[in-house]
Amino acid sequence: MSDRYLVISSDCHAGLRPEAYRDYLDPQYREAFDAALPIQAAAMEESGKRFLVDDINEQWRSGNENLLHGAWDHDARLRVLDGDGIAGEIIFPDGITEMNSPPFGASLGLPTEGVDPEMQWAGARAHNRWLSELVSMAPDRHFGVAVIPCLWDDMDTTLKEVRSARKNGLGGILLPNAWGKRLAYHHSFYEPLWELCADLGVIIHFHSGAAPTEDYFGPMPPKPGQEIPAGAVGVYICEVPFYNVRPVTFMLWGGVFTRHPKLKVAITEGTTIWAPEYVALLEQRYEEAHYSQKLGDFRSHLKGKSPAQAFRENVFLGASCMPRREAEMRDAIGLSQLMWGSDYPHPEGSWPFTRDQMHATFQGLPEDDVAAMLGGNATEFYGFDAEKLAPLVAKIGPEKSWLQGPGPQPSA
Amino acid sequence: MSDRYLVISSDCHAGLRPEAYRDYLDPQYREAFDAALPIQAAAMEESGKRFLVDDINEQWRSGNENLLHGAWDHDARLRVLDGDGIAGEIIFPDGITEMNSPPFGASLGLPTEGVDPEMQWAGARAHNRWLSELVSMAPDRHFGVAVIPCLWDDMDTTLKEVRSARKNGLGGILLPNAWGKRLAYHHSFYEPLWELCADLGVIIHFHSGAAPTEDYFGPMPPKPGQEIPAGAVGVYICEVPFYNVRPVTFMLWGGVFTRHPKLKVAITEGTTIWAPEYVALLEQRYEEAHYSQKLGDFRSHLKGKSPAQAFRENVFLGASCMPRREAEMRDAIGLSQLMWGSDYPHPEGSWPFTRDQMHATFQGLPEDDVAAMLGGNATEFYGFDAEKLAPLVAKIGPEKSWLQGPGPQPSA
Repeated sequence: MSDRYLVISSDCHAGLRPEAYRDYLDPQYREAFDAALPIQAAAMEESGKRFLVDDINEQWRSGNENLLHGAWDHDARLRVLDGDGIAGEIIFPDGITEMNSPPFGASLGLPTEGVDPEMQWAGARAHNRWLSELVSMAPDRHFGVAVIPCLWDDMDTTLKEVRSARKNGLGGILLPNAWGKRLAYHHSFYEPLWELCADLGVIIHFHSGAAPTEDYFGPMPPKPGQEIPAGAVGVYICEVPFYNVRPVTFMLWGGVFTRHPKLKVAITEGTTIWAPEYVALLEQRYEEAHYSQKLGDFRSHLKGKSPAQAFRENVFLGASCMPRREAEMRDAIGLSQLMWGSDYPHPEGSWPFTRDQMHATFQGLPEDDVAAMLGGNATEFYGFDAEKLAPLVAKIGPEKSWLQGPGPQPSA
Repeated sequence: MSDRYLVISSDCHAGLRPEAYRDYLDPQYREAFDAALPIQAAAMEESGKRFLVDDINEQWRSGNENLLHGAWDHDARLRVLDGDGIAGEIIFPDGITEMNSPPFGASLGLPTEGVDPEMQWAGARAHNRWLSELVSMAPDRHFGVAVIPCLWDDMDTTLKEVRSARKNGLGGILLPNAWGKRLAYHHSFYEPLWELCADLGVIIHFHSGAAPTEDYFGPMPPKPGQEIPAGAVGVYICEVPFYNVRPVTFMLWGGVFTRHPKLKVAITEGTTIWAPEYVALLEQRYEEAHYSQKLGDFRSHLKGKSPAQAFRENVFLGASCMPRREAEMRDAIGLSQLMWGSDYPHPEGSWPFTRDQMHATFQGLPEDDVAAMLGGNATEFYGFDAEKLAPLVAKIGPEKSWLQGPGPQPSA
């Protein structure tokens, strides 16, 4: 039994500086890339003004620039992970919110409107190629999540990219949370994708971010003088967990996990306090014949595997920047499903105060439970090799005695 | 202290047979009404085939037809209320799902697409006129909710109809849960409406029903051979509570209750088990400076009245067909906000087994708590006159000893 915790971050991000994606694009898209680069930069700056408070972010970034380069610089990245005590990580796109998105809308939010599907795919392939290189630099520590956009337009392209990503060492895929006017995830259209992922052991991810932005902030792009209603951000941050779990609700009722019992899904950075009542509602709706029978049969295709059961067995929860309240609710949320995450290098993440926050969240809780949340669950779910990581953990892992002790120690 | 409970149903429905709305329409719309009647009937039949299982509903209706006429027949209605032990009720539109909707889309779901705003208003006025008559037949027992559709198009029309409804004895209004591409409820556009309702003491209602139907069932109207994905109904019944509380989320963060501390809102038939974690999330988002500060100020306009506080003070919850689990969770949900409802005459409602279900839900719980949920909260919230109702309660109210006892007694 080690005296240190094996820590896996279920939620980290990586991405190149915008201009550096050029070399990873299929050559035929480079001309369009050169033309789009200044437009994308301007849009990002505009979005930064609108949604991010520049001075807060600048203040946060100040003095940390070199370590934030870990978004694309492998050496800097390992220094951060080591300092945080993180042995392994799951890597999503969009290294730093303002600067490191893959081109052509192949970004974390995976928009379905205002993008050219062919170009979005080109951007996704460029990111996936680069990510494969990054992961290969320390494959025991990095689990890469490939970007799979607008899969509704072309299932063959989707299946091809999933196979290619798997072959290149990426074990997961990121799918869009929102499908716009296309088919939702309970539709039979997606069956070949679920089948392929189950066969290859590819883990499906939905990551927090996308939400009906125009409801909160008004039509995009905004007209001059357009009012942004007070409290818009408050609505967004309260609703975004719903939109993060939404794809899974469709998959659960669609019977995807009845047909593919080995298929794994992660809901990442989605907050987790909704889980107890989400499961209770799934159970209530599944069981209550009287109130819903007027609507017809919606259960027989599940063949006895209820949505609540499938949620407990097939779905894991990435708990980024986990507050203590969530750790205290662990049994109700689902202890075996909870996976801590640092969200490095996002400004809302725990870094550079990861160890302090870790202590505040877990201090005094039972060791086995903490071990499960900090890394045990993720190790099993993602297939990290704990034996291979053991020497590293012995050096960088947070000490169990420290996490049980009274206060934070300085970062290593 | 009475030995019987004062019962108020927070959720009942009334509506005319389709053809009978003609007499209540402004004359200039009657020609259009005659033309639309068969089209509306066909659409309802189609919708019935699609979403309702005809044989289940027929079986349920069989033998109860005369009492279902209580949707529009006042004598039949009072017989049902008396039999259920209900002294007072809140009345929404759409008496029986398949047949009693106000014309021109002025129905419970208040659609924003595929309706002509002028016609929808005409339908709403017709229903409101008739409802005023119904309420006036026993004003101490009936609290009528006026239909207020597509208010975003024309605030003057909206304010005029709210004033008119109030003058005609309707104490509440029903607003659309979904706003399509129009402005959401945190926008300053709605300020005159909130102000008027606070001034007049008009209670705002959001009632379960509307949801993004096309996500579940596919494009409407369906094309021949269009697949309805298995489990679509399961997704709908799990998601619809979110869409019922959604308008309130916007109002809370928009600061509506900071500016109008007397304004009252009811969320009706929305299930209630989401409330504890909804409030926890409101608190978490309001308090957690670190994770959200990058997004800017979204709190100062609330002037210290947090969304969670406003939810507890200004928002009440209509708990229709309340399962025992919700009654057991009453403290976490918010005992002072909970209002039982029968949903008569909807097929998913408790009638004709109201007393059996009431017993199953409340048996053995503390008398004061049961009194609050069954009618005390609603009496205060809606302003029923308990003294005037006392003689009626002495005759029809469920006996407290029976509800504490071991099993259901036959309906009175």
